[in-house]
Amino acid sequence: MLAKIVFVGAGNLATHLATAFFNQGVEILQVYSYTEENAKLLADKVNAAHTASLQNVRTDADIYIYAIKDAFLDQVQVQINAPQAWHLHTAGSVPMNVFKETKLKYGVFYPLQTFSKTKQVDFSKIPICLEASCSEGLEILKELATRISADVREVSSAQREKLHLAAVFTCNFVNRMYAIAHDVVSEHGLSFDILLPLIDETAAKVHTLIPRDAQTGPAMRYDENVINKHLAMLNDDSYKQLYQLISENIYKSQ
Amino acid sequence: MLAKIVFVGAGNLATHLATAFFNQGVEILQVYSYTEENAKLLADKVNAAHTASLQNVRTDADIYIYAIKDAFLDQVQVQINAPQAWHLHTAGSVPMNVFKETKLKYGVFYPLQTFSKTKQVDFSKIPICLEASCSEGLEILKELATRISADVREVSSAQREKLHLAAVFTCNFVNRMYAIAHDVVSEHGLSFDILLPLIDETAAKVHTLIPRDAQTGPAMRYDENVINKHLAMLNDDSYKQLYQLISENIYKSQ
Repeated sequence: MLAKIVFVGAGNLATHLATAFFNQGVEILQVYSYTEENAKLLADKVNAAHTASLQNVRTDADIYIYAIKDAFLDQVQVQINAPQAWHLHTAGSVPMNVFKETKLKYGVFYPLQTFSKTKQVDFSKIPICLEASCSEGLEILKELATRISADVREVSSAQREKLHLAAVFTCNFVNRMYAIAHDVVSEHGLSFDILLPLIDETAAKVHTLIPRDAQTGPAMRYDENVINKHLAMLNDDSYKQLYQLISENIYKSQ
Repeated sequence: MLAKIVFVGAGNLATHLATAFFNQGVEILQVYSYTEENAKLLADKVNAAHTASLQNVRTDADIYIYAIKDAFLDQVQVQINAPQAWHLHTAGSVPMNVFKETKLKYGVFYPLQTFSKTKQVDFSKIPICLEASCSEGLEILKELATRISADVREVSSAQREKLHLAAVFTCNFVNRMYAIAHDVVSEHGLSFDILLPLIDETAAKVHTLIPRDAQTGPAMRYDENVINKHLAMLNDDSYKQLYQLISENIYKSQ
């Protein structure tokens, strides 16, 4: 199968995903984005046509991949009329059935990863969670996914929303902890890079230990002496509140 | 200089640190721990004597390294009488001056890393933060630290307590986020390993982007649709509270 793909969306995920397909020789027919500039930027990277008009989205592709904000998915997909094709969204928290009323063949292609514009990722290690409206579709999706990743899994809508929730904790919330630490060290003339070996080791530990067993630090033993010193050092009230709440949560979880 | 070291403490940090020195040919004279069993366990690993009695701690070492709970440091160090030796503690949040009244030569040897019993670490990449009561002492500490690490830095007590606070966010609190995610996926029959590429990439991103620029996820755009779905999925009230507070914190920080 050499599927022809239209990308609906040109944000971080669309860019990384389209580029990964393009690098594996998969043909990207066209890129649509609400913003012409973004559509062209990605289209040029993957040797595709581009459009900023939903009316001009080509109808002869085999696969339409929607990588747009959740809130826009429904209103955009109903305007794309390609009944013979597969329609796949890439969202963690949107059920597959969003396509049920308007499409014949549909599914989900959810790469469980965080994407930023300027940071390259190795797609081959990214778990791709697939779901399809029929078993034939699942095979097509698997074939497509294995072109770019060695970790392809079948995941239901119910499981996927749990994974997305877990991803918010392990990625978005973790990154916020890094950002607070960045504030703390910057404020005192220290370089954030001194924390990188600790950040890496903290991530590495949960490859071999379950997180509960990897827990260390003053909150575990509720060391009030250290905790109170730390609270006194935090100028921002929301940081104080977070520090206290997470510390209590660690202590009580044991 | 071939310093002879006594380790006061036999916990995770003492074990990893003593082993790193031993592997570099540094002589460990003796290991003290309140618990004889722990003292013997570490002493056997590093070919040292051991004792569970403070009265029997040898007085002829060059360096005493205290790796015990912060709360016990003061009452333990006053009982060790070796006025010619260097006395170093390893705590993030204890000022160097804890030794001021009782010791002539003292300092801090603080490896900025998380240590768990069963997880090996590569000491050569761990930043070691040094502080000494005089410049001669600092040179001795640097010589000692460079035997086991390529990243040796001079850090004042005031800076070190800020680093420790930042480390609580980047390590202890991050690990708690991993643990909550572990709960979420386990509860729904999913394997935690599917999150590991995301965990690794989240850590890798802040090597090249500042954390604020690496932030992604529903909280950034305060996507209430997704946020409310996630809150509804969390059974534990403390998890709900954390989810809400961190999400608000991400949203407001932009």
